[in-house]
Amino acid sequence: MRYALGVEYDGSDFHGWQRLAPHGEAGVATVQATLEEALSTVAAHPVQVVCAGRTDAGVHAECQVVHFDSEAVRTPRSWSLGTTTRLPPSVCVRWCQPVAADFNARFSARARRYRYRILNRAVRPALGRQQLSWERLPLDADAMHRAAQALLGEHDFNAFRTVHCQAPHAVRDLQRLSISREGEQVVVEVQANAFLHHMVRNLVGSLLLVGRGEKPEDWMAELLAGRDRTLAGPTAPADGLVFLGPLYPAACGLPAELNL
Amino acid sequence: MRYALGVEYDGSDFHGWQRLAPHGEAGVATVQATLEEALSTVAAHPVQVVCAGRTDAGVHAECQVVHFDSEAVRTPRSWSLGTTTRLPPSVCVRWCQPVAADFNARFSARARRYRYRILNRAVRPALGRQQLSWERLPLDADAMHRAAQALLGEHDFNAFRTVHCQAPHAVRDLQRLSISREGEQVVVEVQANAFLHHMVRNLVGSLLLVGRGEKPEDWMAELLAGRDRTLAGPTAPADGLVFLGPLYPAACGLPAELNL
Repeated sequence: MRYALGVEYDGSDFHGWQRLAPHGEAGVATVQATLEEALSTVAAHPVQVVCAGRTDAGVHAECQVVHFDSEAVRTPRSWSLGTTTRLPPSVCVRWCQPVAADFNARFSARARRYRYRILNRAVRPALGRQQLSWERLPLDADAMHRAAQALLGEHDFNAFRTVHCQAPHAVRDLQRLSISREGEQVVVEVQANAFLHHMVRNLVGSLLLVGRGEKPEDWMAELLAGRDRTLAGPTAPADGLVFLGPLYPAACGLPAELNL
Repeated sequence: MRYALGVEYDGSDFHGWQRLAPHGEAGVATVQATLEEALSTVAAHPVQVVCAGRTDAGVHAECQVVHFDSEAVRTPRSWSLGTTTRLPPSVCVRWCQPVAADFNARFSARARRYRYRILNRAVRPALGRQQLSWERLPLDADAMHRAAQALLGEHDFNAFRTVHCQAPHAVRDLQRLSISREGEQVVVEVQANAFLHHMVRNLVGSLLLVGRGEKPEDWMAELLAGRDRTLAGPTAPADGLVFLGPLYPAACGLPAELNL
């Protein structure tokens, strides 16, 4: 049987999603290793998971989706609640859903959504700081939004990936990049078919230069066209970034909020 | 010179607001002691603060207000940013404002506002859990709201204070008690001229019994009239509670969002 899980986590305490040590060997704490250990206890056999989108150190998830296979006879409720009781406070399994044998959390996903929150005031954040990055200079959120619209559509996003990115090419379909102000916060909402390594944080890093007025609004389009990552702004910090979750065809049978 | 400060803190790491050891003696970490130590460094003399509303262990503040006196020559910006650099990540000083010699953060406040957030789903929270309490059984937020309206106005709230409460009487003017659902969360917003010890958490604890359908809506009014704290629901956990801040007459000259 193949199952999909919706996994929520606070990435502050983890060295990112991906397991760094082989099964059974001690390593640094990653969400994948922590989740697989808890699932393996519930299943009573070793479990490996495949996720929709690997997240970096310090990045959070509202609804990461994974799939795994098991012949253990457990109800979805047992997979969800039983696994959660074996997880640290920073991780939980929100739901479990049996899926078809050809469902793949990564390859069946048609899009991914992220949110990036910036506290924009003179003083650094204290309350809720685990999910906020901080910009002390005033940001023009409207200018950031206008500048971002030039990036929508299918483009080569080479300018916005890290040198460590292992993707064979950099063409992605950017479906949404909206920037708006909510009181003291500037909120970036982004959706694409898929993302390159550090792509969201690099987009935000360059948009911050536009927001502070250090670069003109048409600079974003210029960066995109130049395809040169050395010209883009610095990578924005991980803290403000939350993986909201992937989107799947409704036929996959996952919870309705994940339907494309 | 007398100054007012707006102080934001994540209460998770503190044993509440109030200093428990005399100045110069080591004690458990409290927000007051931590703040006074940082302010004393900036002022270069011992500083004592008076706050608008003492918070319990684990309770947060978006905008606690304190006043203190100092003859040290510092700009408001220095008091705010200089003190913040000497505070741990869980506390910051959002602003500083010179005030009249008769301003008192506690006695000049005309009202206080709190918010209580409950994550209402089968699985405990992971992301943002520092600011959420958790109820696994479905809550009827509308029923909770209707039940709460019977408490508005000036009443003796003896039923909703802890046995440790040291207030000479329990008459308070409850100006707002609104309960609404925001997705998976049930949010309680409350305002009164002042609060008794544990009053918000005791109100929420009883409202939860109404929300779960274990008590009828008119039970809240019955509890209030009975003035017997042994009949009310259990005290709700501290995690979900945030002190939004006090309200003052506009003549005090504090930031506009604190004006009554």
